[in-house]
Amino acid sequence: MPNSKSVTRITVPLGERTYPILIGDDLLKETGRLAKEHGIPRSCVVITDTNVAPLYLPAVIKSLQRHGFEASSIVIPAGEVQKSLRRAEKIYTQLLRRRAGRRTAIIALGGGVVGDLAGFIAATYQRGLPFVQVPTTLLSQVDSSVGGKVGINHPLGKNMIGAFHQPLFVLADISTLQTLPEREIVCGLGEVVKYGVILDAAFFSRLQGGIQAALRHDTKTLRRFVAECCTMKSFVVSRDEREDGLRSILNFGHTIGHALEKAGGYRSLKHGEAVLWGMLAETMISRRVGLIDREQEFRIYDLIRSVPLPEVPRSSSAQLLRTMRNDKKSTDAQIRFILPRSIGTVTLPTVVEEKLISRVLRDLSWSY
Amino acid sequence: MPNSKSVTRITVPLGERTYPILIGDDLLKETGRLAKEHGIPRSCVVITDTNVAPLYLPAVIKSLQRHGFEASSIVIPAGEVQKSLRRAEKIYTQLLRRRAGRRTAIIALGGGVVGDLAGFIAATYQRGLPFVQVPTTLLSQVDSSVGGKVGINHPLGKNMIGAFHQPLFVLADISTLQTLPEREIVCGLGEVVKYGVILDAAFFSRLQGGIQAALRHDTKTLRRFVAECCTMKSFVVSRDEREDGLRSILNFGHTIGHALEKAGGYRSLKHGEAVLWGMLAETMISRRVGLIDREQEFRIYDLIRSVPLPEVPRSSSAQLLRTMRNDKKSTDAQIRFILPRSIGTVTLPTVVEEKLISRVLRDLSWSY
Repeated sequence: MPNSKSVTRITVPLGERTYPILIGDDLLKETGRLAKEHGIPRSCVVITDTNVAPLYLPAVIKSLQRHGFEASSIVIPAGEVQKSLRRAEKIYTQLLRRRAGRRTAIIALGGGVVGDLAGFIAATYQRGLPFVQVPTTLLSQVDSSVGGKVGINHPLGKNMIGAFHQPLFVLADISTLQTLPEREIVCGLGEVVKYGVILDAAFFSRLQGGIQAALRHDTKTLRRFVAECCTMKSFVVSRDEREDGLRSILNFGHTIGHALEKAGGYRSLKHGEAVLWGMLAETMISRRVGLIDREQEFRIYDLIRSVPLPEVPRSSSAQLLRTMRNDKKSTDAQIRFILPRSIGTVTLPTVVEEKLISRVLRDLSWSY
Repeated sequence: MPNSKSVTRITVPLGERTYPILIGDDLLKETGRLAKEHGIPRSCVVITDTNVAPLYLPAVIKSLQRHGFEASSIVIPAGEVQKSLRRAEKIYTQLLRRRAGRRTAIIALGGGVVGDLAGFIAATYQRGLPFVQVPTTLLSQVDSSVGGKVGINHPLGKNMIGAFHQPLFVLADISTLQTLPEREIVCGLGEVVKYGVILDAAFFSRLQGGIQAALRHDTKTLRRFVAECCTMKSFVVSRDEREDGLRSILNFGHTIGHALEKAGGYRSLKHGEAVLWGMLAETMISRRVGLIDREQEFRIYDLIRSVPLPEVPRSSSAQLLRTMRNDKKSTDAQIRFILPRSIGTVTLPTVVEEKLISRVLRDLSWSY
């Protein structure tokens, strides 16, 4: 009992914006108590989606009300297309109709889409509201709920409109991962593998077994993944909150990943799946420019291929390159990558010739 | 010559976000040099409107190019209606089409509308771009270009969507005020009078003569107003960047002002005109709740009535009250005001009974 009740607390040290990540089992019903402890204003709006609401919204609202909060909710349709200016505008209108003022907290209950969108609302409604992240997917628990990046998509590019808006706390209830379909676990594993490659060879070495356990929803493994990844993300974000340097290493796999995700219309590949393919391709690039050796390349290859993945969407390399040039990580027309030097160490953004990228993209589509 | 060439420099001390306000005559042609001195990235986009572009855009672009900047521009139609999500979306699209990346600076050239809108774009495009304010109206030079408040309007309320995003520097060229129509000078005077009432009785005492000189476009007076108001605003903003306390005193006149502005469809009263009416009404409220004495009330009355003002738009007090209840300065259903205790000292936000507000609003429409 002390073990299952225990809460792991990881601090993200950001000066006056310092906040904790609380990780544990069956934590949702503690939302109200924790919100009170963290000084959340009495009035709060839970933003969630149609997948998550039937499963977890009642417990969260009940817990908030039990602790004296005036809690209401906004439920949006599920899916990446909701991360739009259109949806944001509707939510602004709902908040205004409810007379939400500056002392209203926004609580994001859901996966990455809900967290990014609700966080953008919290960053911009009346110039900023207190914000809480309650991630309910592996992807959002290991990665997107931590670090304050919030935003929405533009038809011409993902996350092109956004802000940095740190939460007051993050509540990661591991029990919510039990209801996730396999594809959602896979998405989270994309970021888990990323942390191994960019920062921690020992963690990477333990992943082979861990991945299979995570795919079986093994609670202990999932909890360990969340705690270890949040610790690494906190380390990076606290040293470079606004991605002026070090933080860019978190983009490993994301340059090609974003392009593939877009090529599949944000449907045939989910974000984490696209990142897995992206990491594979970017490791191949690293090998061809002579940074990583063949043995380590194979280890990354083997680990990624042990995760069930849909095929790479069909798209010309010219089209993919165009998307990459427009990526906001590109500061000019040149395409840059975070490239692994070895497992656990990566470069800062490095320009790579387009011809070489093209060759790797072509190999990617027929080698698997 | 040393006098007309001299630049007044006022610092806004905000830790790592500290920046200078540079005030002088004929400064626009120095934009490029100053941008270079302040480390603005080589690529920049000037956002301006159809009123300002023919007058000042060529000089600014030329100066930027002469100093090695890649400068392009986005010209929007003039007017408050442009402070919309619709317009913001169009600008995001234009920036994406031009492949503007994170190392693109946004330069706002124009009045409050351009500054607020361009600032909102700078705050949210790709999670934040470097930003420069080049205000060309009295209102924006004395007030809105300083302090980092940026935002756009929602059909249900002004400035409801926004952020705090400090500029890297503010360049206030007093010469640009020479082309302003009288109504625009009046708008700036609204904020000038506000600074006298909320913070500085001595400054207030000198205003009677100064207002007439400003209406004649007297350069020395205008420059003094800009420098003194920026000094006061810097004082307030540096003590309370995000309006958690002291900064709220800058809202004197704005609770009723915003409601009147909205009642007039943002056309029959301009912002500064509405603030002048708002300050008059809020001073009357202060008198009725027994805070300010009759003599000081009359002095404020006389000063405001020495400024040429359009009539108060016809609107029911019930409608005006409804708008005020939805104001983002209202933290619950209650309406709060910054009330002058005497010239130079005001309260923090103070709840006032709606019946009393109604009576003052009715008096306002038939006493003048």
